[in-house]
Amino acid sequence: MSRTEIKDYGEFGLIHHLTKNIELQNASSILGVGDDAAVIDHFGKQTVITTDMLIEGVHFDLSYTPLKHLGYKSVIVNLSDIYAMNATPTQLLLSIGISSRFSVEAIEEFYEGVYAACEEHGVDLIGGDTSSSQKGFIISITAIGEATPEQIVKRSTAQKGDLICCSGDLGAAYIGLLFLEREKKIYLESPGVQPDLENEAYVIGRLLKPSARKDIHELLEEKKVIPTSMMDISDGLSSELLHICESSGVGCVIYEEKLPISEDSRNAAYKFEIDPTACALSGGEDYELLFTIKQDDYEKLTLIEKISVIGYITEAEEGAKIKTKGGNTYNITAQGWNAFKEG
Amino acid sequence: MSRTEIKDYGEFGLIHHLTKNIELQNASSILGVGDDAAVIDHFGKQTVITTDMLIEGVHFDLSYTPLKHLGYKSVIVNLSDIYAMNATPTQLLLSIGISSRFSVEAIEEFYEGVYAACEEHGVDLIGGDTSSSQKGFIISITAIGEATPEQIVKRSTAQKGDLICCSGDLGAAYIGLLFLEREKKIYLESPGVQPDLENEAYVIGRLLKPSARKDIHELLEEKKVIPTSMMDISDGLSSELLHICESSGVGCVIYEEKLPISEDSRNAAYKFEIDPTACALSGGEDYELLFTIKQDDYEKLTLIEKISVIGYITEAEEGAKIKTKGGNTYNITAQGWNAFKEG
Repeated sequence: MSRTEIKDYGEFGLIHHLTKNIELQNASSILGVGDDAAVIDHFGKQTVITTDMLIEGVHFDLSYTPLKHLGYKSVIVNLSDIYAMNATPTQLLLSIGISSRFSVEAIEEFYEGVYAACEEHGVDLIGGDTSSSQKGFIISITAIGEATPEQIVKRSTAQKGDLICCSGDLGAAYIGLLFLEREKKIYLESPGVQPDLENEAYVIGRLLKPSARKDIHELLEEKKVIPTSMMDISDGLSSELLHICESSGVGCVIYEEKLPISEDSRNAAYKFEIDPTACALSGGEDYELLFTIKQDDYEKLTLIEKISVIGYITEAEEGAKIKTKGGNTYNITAQGWNAFKEG
Repeated sequence: MSRTEIKDYGEFGLIHHLTKNIELQNASSILGVGDDAAVIDHFGKQTVITTDMLIEGVHFDLSYTPLKHLGYKSVIVNLSDIYAMNATPTQLLLSIGISSRFSVEAIEEFYEGVYAACEEHGVDLIGGDTSSSQKGFIISITAIGEATPEQIVKRSTAQKGDLICCSGDLGAAYIGLLFLEREKKIYLESPGVQPDLENEAYVIGRLLKPSARKDIHELLEEKKVIPTSMMDISDGLSSELLHICESSGVGCVIYEEKLPISEDSRNAAYKFEIDPTACALSGGEDYELLFTIKQDDYEKLTLIEKISVIGYITEAEEGAKIKTKGGNTYNITAQGWNAFKEG
């Protein structure tokens, strides 16, 4: 593969090269890349906006993350936040900082993933910034969405008696990470050894190519269910549940046996001799939706396989609890990834 | 001064600590920090949005940049882009990546500058991301503004015969940078020597604490002048003029003698034996507004000291030219800062 140096393009040349084929898809995208700022018109809807920064060596490891997957995932983690507000993502701004270690071809690969995610979710890339970094790859994305004021769902509005629901399954991304970290270690010690990841496609795929739950967002709309509170699961179920309880001023009970964990995840967890429930509670990076609904809405969602009811909301004084399969009750504690603990 | 480690707070604790006193000022700021995303309602106006990434060692040097100034400037460079669209800035999202080299107190200083700029411009901080970095300080800001569709001014709409205007004065920030780089070199070679910057307050101030031209934006509105094209000067006048000419499909003539250069800048440039005109054309980081107006609007702005008319728009075939004091005509070429050239 040929290698083109970034300096051969220059900043403006590179931006043009990477964005020249963009065709704006949303009526609300009035003006895209190429001016001081982009212009959006949400025609009476409210604008929902979120931003995330991803730094090489902290949030991703390029030794086992293909650049195309990284581009895809960088977009997905932001869109997930938009869906978590019960809004529809419409636009994206992408800034990258890159060292001279990266060729134009490498950045193109990254952008391929970005564009794939944008296309899948009907989102327009409308702006950004490209700069050099002294070390490593830095990504900052701002995602924008729209919703009517009535549609928007916050974290702070769960009420006693509401049912706690969760999409998809939990814990897989964390187990995928354990595998990749183990293989990296083996590779560094004995570069000749072939990685043994054949049976772990599911958990590794969940880490490297997560989904943002557009389908759940659309399903809720179709079923005319507006959750009473919602957020996405990026730091682990425990941490997110505590966020909802704290901002809503409520407590909760969840049931271990109700936690959605895939067979692949269970089998993979046992290989590491770790508890699949612990992975589901504290693993993080699942990008599933955690939401609460009124009991009256239960029947509208009950037959839908990709949504699990895992517990219910209680009064604040009752705390946040998990009832185990063995019949014990424990307090839920946040042990999600905390980048600063390694600090 | 005491030093609190970031890990003592944790990510959520730190965000809460830094944002707990925010009081939203704009009616359009529906929901701020603390959920998956922020919510904005521009009540029928269009949303203008821009983003910038600033990386330690590439865009700023902490050996001579106080953190409070850095916070202030990081906001200003983004607001400048909003004013350059002839829009009013309303909200801001701020993401930072910080290594354990920084204490909570250091980050607080940075935020002081951020809040000072927000207050000055009536802007709400409504979201962001805080993460650890392996090395150095990384800042990514997204600024949001609003305008009616008729108010918004692009780069691509300058027309033959329009007058080219520029706010404030040019070149000072670049000369300020030369002084600070020189003093840094002297300091590194002989740490005992006191810096000799006494007479250079103006040019250094222009680098470390630039303004975003809210006043010019308001003045244009007051005088009912809507520029035919506009952008802010971040990479140097030459580079920006070429952007306007290229996107508008026009040419231009500017006059060296009309370029606004302060006496302080001239004197400072002579100390480095460099041409003040070259600094004005290629220096960058002035964050002044460059705009074109219809000839009919000339009288409305003519007596305003902070706006200079520096030339006029021609047909594309005539190219982009500068007429020197000596009577020569040269092509304008972009020699603005290009971070990738150093690669």
